[in-house]
Amino acid sequence: MSIITIIGAGQMASALSFPATENNNKVRLVGTPLDRNIIDTAKATGFHTTLKRQLPKIGIEYYQIEDVNKAIEGADVVICGVSSFGVDWFADNILSIIPENTPILSITKGMVNGEDDKMINYPHYFLSKVPSNKKLSISAVGGPCTSYELADKDNSEVVFCGDDINILRMFKSLFETSYYHISLSTDIVGVECAVALKNAYALGVSLAIGLAIGFDGSGKEHYNSQAALFGQSLKEIKHLLKLAGGGEENIIYSGGDLYVTIFGGRTRKVGTLLGQGFSFEQTMKKLKGVTLESIVIATRTARYVRGLAKRGIVKLSDFPLIIHVDDIINSGAKVDIPWKAFESEKI
Amino acid sequence: MSIITIIGAGQMASALSFPATENNNKVRLVGTPLDRNIIDTAKATGFHTTLKRQLPKIGIEYYQIEDVNKAIEGADVVICGVSSFGVDWFADNILSIIPENTPILSITKGMVNGEDDKMINYPHYFLSKVPSNKKLSISAVGGPCTSYELADKDNSEVVFCGDDINILRMFKSLFETSYYHISLSTDIVGVECAVALKNAYALGVSLAIGLAIGFDGSGKEHYNSQAALFGQSLKEIKHLLKLAGGGEENIIYSGGDLYVTIFGGRTRKVGTLLGQGFSFEQTMKKLKGVTLESIVIATRTARYVRGLAKRGIVKLSDFPLIIHVDDIINSGAKVDIPWKAFESEKI
Repeated sequence: MSIITIIGAGQMASALSFPATENNNKVRLVGTPLDRNIIDTAKATGFHTTLKRQLPKIGIEYYQIEDVNKAIEGADVVICGVSSFGVDWFADNILSIIPENTPILSITKGMVNGEDDKMINYPHYFLSKVPSNKKLSISAVGGPCTSYELADKDNSEVVFCGDDINILRMFKSLFETSYYHISLSTDIVGVECAVALKNAYALGVSLAIGLAIGFDGSGKEHYNSQAALFGQSLKEIKHLLKLAGGGEENIIYSGGDLYVTIFGGRTRKVGTLLGQGFSFEQTMKKLKGVTLESIVIATRTARYVRGLAKRGIVKLSDFPLIIHVDDIINSGAKVDIPWKAFESEKI
Repeated sequence: MSIITIIGAGQMASALSFPATENNNKVRLVGTPLDRNIIDTAKATGFHTTLKRQLPKIGIEYYQIEDVNKAIEGADVVICGVSSFGVDWFADNILSIIPENTPILSITKGMVNGEDDKMINYPHYFLSKVPSNKKLSISAVGGPCTSYELADKDNSEVVFCGDDINILRMFKSLFETSYYHISLSTDIVGVECAVALKNAYALGVSLAIGLAIGFDGSGKEHYNSQAALFGQSLKEIKHLLKLAGGGEENIIYSGGDLYVTIFGGRTRKVGTLLGQGFSFEQTMKKLKGVTLESIVIATRTARYVRGLAKRGIVKLSDFPLIIHVDDIINSGAKVDIPWKAFESEKI
């Protein structure tokens, strides 16, 4: 039995309470300032208002953010459960109060641009925010897993990555169940790059859905064009993985994660609306209130690619899909998939 | 303008007449002995009975098999348009009547087991059937493209592979249109392996659909488990590509093709029924009359893997998904996905 303090009570963070409590761990679920209502309701009724599920009856304690110190005290591990929009909040407010010997596991997928617009994954970004005299161990979760289906105990394969294989094995022992399957990898750069990029490219693949159903939405969904964009996505991600210094075998995580994200909700919606012919502004208006990590990650990926191109390391024409996505969302370009630019000749 | 003789009037072969005639080529569509009715109806009405589309009005001539010699006479290229079940028929009856200087392009996806159960792709299999004093050039088509959507002019990205890049470029010039996009590769082994295997693994991924909807079909489709099997498929295909001597970059064709095949028709149906809990015999009965290339290719892939394992080159445990699929279809095993066997540790 371990004490697992999860900070952030969003859907995925809260869904982790299922495997965690099933293994007889004690979960302390701490809401961020944005999760006040989620925590209040869950405390009163056990119901999670955005995950739309009853959380496990036994083994969870709920905390508002004021009590975060109490929630961390005595915890064996801390889970960073914020979305990519909460990363700075977590870095600024929480990292400083986590004791040195308490391993952290982050579920946040994404990356930021560092110097020269390089891609920096969140575990490394967090570490850059910690005073140099404080040592923290920050691992992360990747792989295709939607929160609803985890809560429903669908079989899911994820990967935990981090510097220390023994810490990863410990995390695995906390969460591994008959339906939550966990691979381990010390290739943080590779895993995190593979899973961060899938959000950007899921948006790209979804453009084909919108193109097929048309502006009035009455058309029939096609798969050839989606498959073409899926293949091109894998091609560009493979290239980016190599540039970032991640192992190319991580492409399997991008593939699975891309697959599930296209059937997910939000990212598919953005790409579909854009593909239908709505402008980026119209699309944003229609999806008001929805957090759009795919927009952020697509923008950042394109910035990374443009930075590399500027320094002569790649050609922009090696990344026609992400550059087009970026042009659509950041420069008002109309959707016009550069199909011919995807063609290659391998001799 | 070129004369393109397509032998085999099935769905994909016939769908190719759209890009071919759009480029002002003359198509001679020759039915196999099994396509008699398709040719008769198309000749009379232009309607293709299994593709369920009107074929192009201009530029196609229809031939029954008795007139195959006439159809080949003067042809600039010949397309092998049979399914994998017609490969031996094509090898035995057609290869011998194709002149040496007439390039062949095969659309058949799959492979056979050769000596030591090795995988032999169809272009190489065909060449092994040609008398050694006859020189034929046989290229092939890979990549994600369903016939219906090609006929509907959905954007599709395919890859033509063959020994001779100039012949490939010539083929590309015949078929390339605003919706049919063609990459070229001289890595026949890699491309053909990548696209053949997707049928086997699409069956594997589809098991998760059946498991989710249950025996009575009333359950809700899940994606985490499909994504897990999708990722595992890419992992095993990557490994097989390497063993076969194909370039690992071809994984992008497997990915796209796997994606479209899971939404396709027949392979998805087999996997779903098996996943629901129907035995292989019951599944075959329900799908009576449907050609099931996925069954054949899964069996052959497993045979290849077992052959390698016997010779100490791989461990069966490196390929848990395809071995389980093989056990289901060839040894009466119940569906019981070996989730834990998919887990890995990378240090």
